[in-house]
Amino acid sequence: MRNVRLWVAYDGTGFAGWQRQAGAATIQELLEDAVALLTGERVTLHGAGRTDSGVHALCQSAHFRSEAGLPADRFAPALNTFLPAAIRVLGSAVVPDDFHARFSARAKRYLYRIRWGPVTSPIGQHYFHHERRPLDVAAMRAAGRLLIGQHDFLAFANNPGHQRKRPTVRTIQALHLPRRRDGVDLVVQGDGFLYNMVRTLAGTLLLVGRGLQPPPWVGAVLQSCDRKTAGPTLPADGLFLIRVLYPRQLEPRLGLRCRAFF
Amino acid sequence: MRNVRLWVAYDGTGFAGWQRQAGAATIQELLEDAVALLTGERVTLHGAGRTDSGVHALCQSAHFRSEAGLPADRFAPALNTFLPAAIRVLGSAVVPDDFHARFSARAKRYLYRIRWGPVTSPIGQHYFHHERRPLDVAAMRAAGRLLIGQHDFLAFANNPGHQRKRPTVRTIQALHLPRRRDGVDLVVQGDGFLYNMVRTLAGTLLLVGRGLQPPPWVGAVLQSCDRKTAGPTLPADGLFLIRVLYPRQLEPRLGLRCRAFF
Repeated sequence: MRNVRLWVAYDGTGFAGWQRQAGAATIQELLEDAVALLTGERVTLHGAGRTDSGVHALCQSAHFRSEAGLPADRFAPALNTFLPAAIRVLGSAVVPDDFHARFSARAKRYLYRIRWGPVTSPIGQHYFHHERRPLDVAAMRAAGRLLIGQHDFLAFANNPGHQRKRPTVRTIQALHLPRRRDGVDLVVQGDGFLYNMVRTLAGTLLLVGRGLQPPPWVGAVLQSCDRKTAGPTLPADGLFLIRVLYPRQLEPRLGLRCRAFF
Repeated sequence: MRNVRLWVAYDGTGFAGWQRQAGAATIQELLEDAVALLTGERVTLHGAGRTDSGVHALCQSAHFRSEAGLPADRFAPALNTFLPAAIRVLGSAVVPDDFHARFSARAKRYLYRIRWGPVTSPIGQHYFHHERRPLDVAAMRAAGRLLIGQHDFLAFANNPGHQRKRPTVRTIQALHLPRRRDGVDLVVQGDGFLYNMVRTLAGTLLLVGRGLQPPPWVGAVLQSCDRKTAGPTLPADGLFLIRVLYPRQLEPRLGLRCRAFF
């Protein structure tokens, strides 16, 4: 019985998210079905992050246990033949038995794309959130710095009743807001994220970028631990899981490139 | 009766092209229907180029005649309220009576996007043609230079029986192959293009980029006037109509930005 790791990219548009659920097309289900078609095994695929409906991934990480004799690197191209074009397995490898895509992960990195202009672009409409006017990126960066480090992020979590049963302290290791042509990206890396947290961080920084709130307000939101004080949860379209980070000894060197041809 | 010009961007995925046809969703039809909903008039919308099924536009140009009293610049936002998100009117203006989107056009500029890597990206899968291996861009550029100028482009036209009734001499005013991250773009401007010509130029330059043909072969293809000698017609996904150029006196200065948020 081998432990097989997959690196997976997907366009989340039109899927009901990662996690298998009855009556809806999900990434997990389609990948598990592809494994069944390839090896005849009904496996459970464990993903590092359960991305929501409409959220994309440049490099989701997942694992499953298999008795198939296929060379480890052949799983990726073979599975792709059973998958829709919106899901691509970028690579596959046999990993140590104690590797778990979710529990071994040390950090995840997300990207939220915001683009602006008088009219939205129909090209790539599912890959960004549109603003009519340019945002004040300097103010957003000042606000973003207040989020870095270990904090209780309860104010940025939806479904707080559910969250309160579990610890809501997380560490944001890095948060950048690189300028792009006609827009800004939010790139945030942390040891874990609460439900809808990245999209709510983006919506909160958006209010600062619009000049509706000053940067220190974001610190007050954080300290309030009250979801009602934070900004809106932005749509899933702009959100990408771009990387899952593991301890170095668990990372095989495959030379994979987790990039989108935007 | 005013002559109203529209600047239009669209994601061609899922549409049967620009031109109205029975039983299929087309850009022209949806725009004409939007005008009918806005003004009550059944107009004929004349587009500069009849883009094929699946082809995108960053800045298609079109005109129609209207008796509606709406200020000219309000057509764009008003029409957008009746259009799907895949079609956006970027701007509108009243233009001289003798302006015709198609017959007044002096040139059109197209973009064909090629991206490469071991696995295709599911993100933006409808916005590029995928190659497994990098192409030899220097060889493609040497071949591309042979296409610039006035030539009979019959060898690059599909449906040649139809073409032969009409002159097939066109002038390519500019042809560039800028390198992009993990790919190359073909940007070509000409006074007109035969049926499927840009996609066949791209497919012919592709064979040179793969090293299957030397650059001078493209000159021989051109001179053959025989479609069978040219490369394949690449899929519509990678093709964008990016600009229609008119004589300066016909171009109102609107400061429109015809760009995609890729």
